[in-house]
Amino acid sequence: MINVGVIGVGVIGQDHIRRLSHVLSGARVASVTDVDQERARSVATGLPGATVAATGEELIASPAVDAVVVTSWGPTHEAYVLAGIAAGKPVFCEKPLASTADACSRIIDAEVATGRRQVQVGFMRRYDAQYRAVREVVAGGSIGTPLLMHAAHRNPSVPPHFTSDMIINDSAVHDIDVARWMFDDEIASVSVFKPRQNRKASRGLDDPLVLLLEMSGGVLVDVEVMLNASFGYDIRGEVVCEDGTVELSESAGAVVKAGGRYSGRVPTHWVERFARAFDTEFQEWLDTIAADVEPTGPSCWDGYAATVVCDAGLAAQRSGQREPVVLRERPDLYKTE
Amino acid sequence: MINVGVIGVGVIGQDHIRRLSHVLSGARVASVTDVDQERARSVATGLPGATVAATGEELIASPAVDAVVVTSWGPTHEAYVLAGIAAGKPVFCEKPLASTADACSRIIDAEVATGRRQVQVGFMRRYDAQYRAVREVVAGGSIGTPLLMHAAHRNPSVPPHFTSDMIINDSAVHDIDVARWMFDDEIASVSVFKPRQNRKASRGLDDPLVLLLEMSGGVLVDVEVMLNASFGYDIRGEVVCEDGTVELSESAGAVVKAGGRYSGRVPTHWVERFARAFDTEFQEWLDTIAADVEPTGPSCWDGYAATVVCDAGLAAQRSGQREPVVLRERPDLYKTE
Amino acid sequence: MINVGVIGVGVIGQDHIRRLSHVLSGARVASVTDVDQERARSVATGLPGATVAATGEELIASPAVDAVVVTSWGPTHEAYVLAGIAAGKPVFCEKPLASTADACSRIIDAEVATGRRQVQVGFMRRYDAQYRAVREVVAGGSIGTPLLMHAAHRNPSVPPHFTSDMIINDSAVHDIDVARWMFDDEIASVSVFKPRQNRKASRGLDDPLVLLLEMSGGVLVDVEVMLNASFGYDIRGEVVCEDGTVELSESAGAVVKAGGRYSGRVPTHWVERFARAFDTEFQEWLDTIAADVEPTGPSCWDGYAATVVCDAGLAAQRSGQREPVVLRERPDLYKTE
Amino acid sequence: MINVGVIGVGVIGQDHIRRLSHVLSGARVASVTDVDQERARSVATGLPGATVAATGEELIASPAVDAVVVTSWGPTHEAYVLAGIAAGKPVFCEKPLASTADACSRIIDAEVATGRRQVQVGFMRRYDAQYRAVREVVAGGSIGTPLLMHAAHRNPSVPPHFTSDMIINDSAVHDIDVARWMFDDEIASVSVFKPRQNRKASRGLDDPLVLLLEMSGGVLVDVEVMLNASFGYDIRGEVVCEDGTVELSESAGAVVKAGGRYSGRVPTHWVERFARAFDTEFQEWLDTIAADVEPTGPSCWDGYAATVVCDAGLAAQRSGQREPVVLRERPDLYKTE
Repeated sequence: MINVGVIGVGVIGQDHIRRLSHVLSGARVASVTDVDQERARSVATGLPGATVAATGEELIASPAVDAVVVTSWGPTHEAYVLAGIAAGKPVFCEKPLASTADACSRIIDAEVATGRRQVQVGFMRRYDAQYRAVREVVAGGSIGTPLLMHAAHRNPSVPPHFTSDMIINDSAVHDIDVARWMFDDEIASVSVFKPRQNRKASRGLDDPLVLLLEMSGGVLVDVEVMLNASFGYDIRGEVVCEDGTVELSESAGAVVKAGGRYSGRVPTHWVERFARAFDTEFQEWLDTIAADVEPTGPSCWDGYAATVVCDAGLAAQRSGQREPVVLRERPDLYKTE
Repeated sequence: MINVGVIGVGVIGQDHIRRLSHVLSGARVASVTDVDQERARSVATGLPGATVAATGEELIASPAVDAVVVTSWGPTHEAYVLAGIAAGKPVFCEKPLASTADACSRIIDAEVATGRRQVQVGFMRRYDAQYRAVREVVAGGSIGTPLLMHAAHRNPSVPPHFTSDMIINDSAVHDIDVARWMFDDEIASVSVFKPRQNRKASRGLDDPLVLLLEMSGGVLVDVEVMLNASFGYDIRGEVVCEDGTVELSESAGAVVKAGGRYSGRVPTHWVERFARAFDTEFQEWLDTIAADVEPTGPSCWDGYAATVVCDAGLAAQRSGQREPVVLRERPDLYKTE
Repeated sequence: MINVGVIGVGVIGQDHIRRLSHVLSGARVASVTDVDQERARSVATGLPGATVAATGEELIASPAVDAVVVTSWGPTHEAYVLAGIAAGKPVFCEKPLASTADACSRIIDAEVATGRRQVQVGFMRRYDAQYRAVREVVAGGSIGTPLLMHAAHRNPSVPPHFTSDMIINDSAVHDIDVARWMFDDEIASVSVFKPRQNRKASRGLDDPLVLLLEMSGGVLVDVEVMLNASFGYDIRGEVVCEDGTVELSESAGAVVKAGGRYSGRVPTHWVERFARAFDTEFQEWLDTIAADVEPTGPSCWDGYAATVVCDAGLAAQRSGQREPVVLRERPDLYKTE
Repeated sequence: MINVGVIGVGVIGQDHIRRLSHVLSGARVASVTDVDQERARSVATGLPGATVAATGEELIASPAVDAVVVTSWGPTHEAYVLAGIAAGKPVFCEKPLASTADACSRIIDAEVATGRRQVQVGFMRRYDAQYRAVREVVAGGSIGTPLLMHAAHRNPSVPPHFTSDMIINDSAVHDIDVARWMFDDEIASVSVFKPRQNRKASRGLDDPLVLLLEMSGGVLVDVEVMLNASFGYDIRGEVVCEDGTVELSESAGAVVKAGGRYSGRVPTHWVERFARAFDTEFQEWLDTIAADVEPTGPSCWDGYAATVVCDAGLAAQRSGQREPVVLRERPDLYKTE
């Protein structure tokens, strides 16, 4: 039984607590903390034997905690992840790894100094069965070398405070990670195009947005991000290779014929679409801890690279130009043979 | 943490042990037994703290066991289920509940005498997300009263010892339970039709077979059962209502275009098709135990009714006639309001 | 330019006139007649150079008519087809070939006596691109020997005067012809099952109905016929072979995502579903006339066999029993090598 | 019966001759000509009553010709279209209308001077049932204002002489016309992106290519053009609107399950994909001639605009920059109210 400490018990933190407590095998939540101690205490009430730590640092240091989940506010991530590394404990950090490229870089330095991967970053699409099936076909080589990818990321709606920066940093960041993972390659440049604005979008919000990502190896990825799609949470992806294409299918379920139409469900929320991916992500993470091996999921390098690409995306959003992505050298720790 | 004892550690028993130990939340396997004690000991080795009981009865009686899973040979089910009821412990019994209608009836009597449902029978399709989606549409009433159901149950292959009786008792029994559950109604008669035999079927095996089930309320259900389909494990179902139809969709996954075709995967094994349904089935069962409420899954009545319908199916297979289904009166314990 | 005479200018006759005049190549309507002479005159007004014949016999005899289309009331077909054969002119007769098996048999005798096929019967599904694609796969043998076929024939609604006999004679007759053509085999017996009645059906109408057709070679065909489906005109068909299955796809068109659903159109009328099949049927018929070869479409034998099977279906509908189909010997003229 | 003259009897010319002679209603080919007179004579042999004209001009002037189809080499189009206008005869001109924007402009001037539309340009996708269904949904407004369109144009292969210019002028030109027609709007700028080259493409060929078209109203259209897709002729299109999306469906036909896959056909040639669109295009054109009304299909303005956009595309292909599209003022003759 792995004793997990959770830093930050907002919506996403509570969802992971539910997952660790009631869905997955081999873990329990042993301690929680939150900037809002009241909320932490309230959450702990429902968790048999769980303590409330005064701070993230205290939680990380506690001998009752074997592994740490960081789901607090983005700007606090760096400190907690560094503390987790220092304590030699496995850390699962929700994206972003840290809020600036420099901060991510410092985490990399700290982890590299330990000589062992300890941190996993929460890019959950890598655990989605459909994305995995697509990647397996691409990697299998049966349809040849990849040339292009078309992607769409459609959210039914976003809260009024959602900004144009967040379209890149909070939404497109998932597609950026998917592109890097799908082709096992870095993104070399980013361009941004702004179509006619959706009238349901707040004044000044660049919604929808089209990103063009050029991979180092030449694959071109276009990503439509639309945050006021209203009709559903619709994630599309198609990889075009030299001898064929492969794409995510429409979600399964019941097909109804009525009123002159056949129809099926489009998910209405990212929770519905990716619930299983979150479960798999955490179970695989717990399994590596139980087996005392390095995590196999997204690394600090992946968190760093995603942040640098997002920065280029923000620059392209402002300049209207193709903006290059410049990465530091990749440490050996993160090289895959 | 619920301590589960497992009686019978063959293929299906071991799969449930894996599920309870490594996939689901809130349970551990505390004890196992098997007619082959060597095998029981070997399986127990991989289960921290698990004991090996000499007999099912010993396992059921053990204070270290909170709940019992029966996955032994069918003809032994009756004795273990009755012992579990007598011991006042929750029992999950793989289908069949017992191998004769009379045996099922005796279990009903024993359970009714306790005044409380303790037994759940393993008809896992009720936990499949697609079947649930179809049933939800039917029950929701948006497409009107149901009139017909078309079903197909295609297995890529069966072992050489598979008999024509087993087509009814081991394969079609799932479709029989689905029909009862889908329409919340009993089956009134069964007819069996034998198309041209599949050349891959063993000599004398009635493969494929078509069952016609007439529900008490008039819904007609046709079920194609084909056990040497070779191309995959293909489960189809469509309910036709007065104002529309609803059907299971093809399985999701990657859609590939290559060589002049678009294509997607058909599952190749029932494990692939129903793995998630088994997980859900067990997690929901464990959750009722943790909450100390009666099980919500298939009851002894469902196990009894399925067995009586199978008997009628076997009779129809021999007679070529429409055979009636005659059930005992349904005890109040199994009435849904 | 083939000069066509049309006997019977009701709805279907007028549709064929439109097809011959404005859609297809190589034909014109030279003469029309109808029991309602007023209507015949009115229709002729829009057809440059077309005459109105007083009777079908006069039209057939006219030297201005090269080929005859019979779209009059069913019971009149026999006389017109016989007259066409006697006149040595190509005849296209809408189904039924004649209203009784004996009448069909007399037509066969007359045609056989001429030593040459002159008559084509209007089973238009044989010309539908989807049905043809299914049959091509079955005949190609890539998925093995056929064992079963599942079919559904769903009409949004029927007029109040529609009778239970007409379900067999006017609706299921198409599925009966498809089964014979798909497997190049005769139907050996017919059973009829009556599910719960659709409340939208007139009192006493056996709607829906399930037919079970057993082919001589052992293939079993089940056909759902539902005439008050309300949601659309929905034609389904799946052939199950030893190594795979093949089915009609859903109709193509625009796929819309809106309001939480993806959806596509279901045709609402048989005209929408089969318009192209009618065009192809007639163009291929005209092409055989232009080339002065025998027609390649459904023959008098097909018309006769369909009528005999319908008679067995009507008997089964009344008896509730499996009814055998007994055909006369097949003349050499209708044997395919 | 409309007497059509055909200038240029190469592959596409012969296909239109077959269509006019054997598929459509109301026309015959009365005269043909070709720069290769031998070929013209050979083609005329199979056409009852057809003459061979020495030149296009002679054919246009012939009193035996009611309407003219121009399917000769692109650079010759201008002269023939101008002659057709001068002769007051309906002209159907395969794309391009003329090989330069200036030449197109001269044709516009000539047609405007007559005060009546006489010329239709061969953008056949406007007649495809699927494209029409998509446009109908967009125009119907049920899913809101359009914001984006994603398109793919995949050809299995191209001849060795195919150049990068031809990717724009011969392939993407269809997508350019679709964008203008779909949104009833002009294209304001073109950008071109070059992904990794397909190894099956000839040295130096920009294959695949991605075009970004910005419409005057703000809709952004991305078009993937891939000419060595090998797996099939695959045309995709999805319009994203404020409240939903609508896309071309996969082509219908037989769906096969075999070998662990369900699959359906992808067309292998543009003839297979668009045969019906060509038929509809010509039949509607003939119908306007028979009715003596102006053509309703793509106009000289559409031909001109497509050529100007192609020029901008070629510039963008070279510069790597976003290139503006500058059109002359639109004459009243081509304004739709």
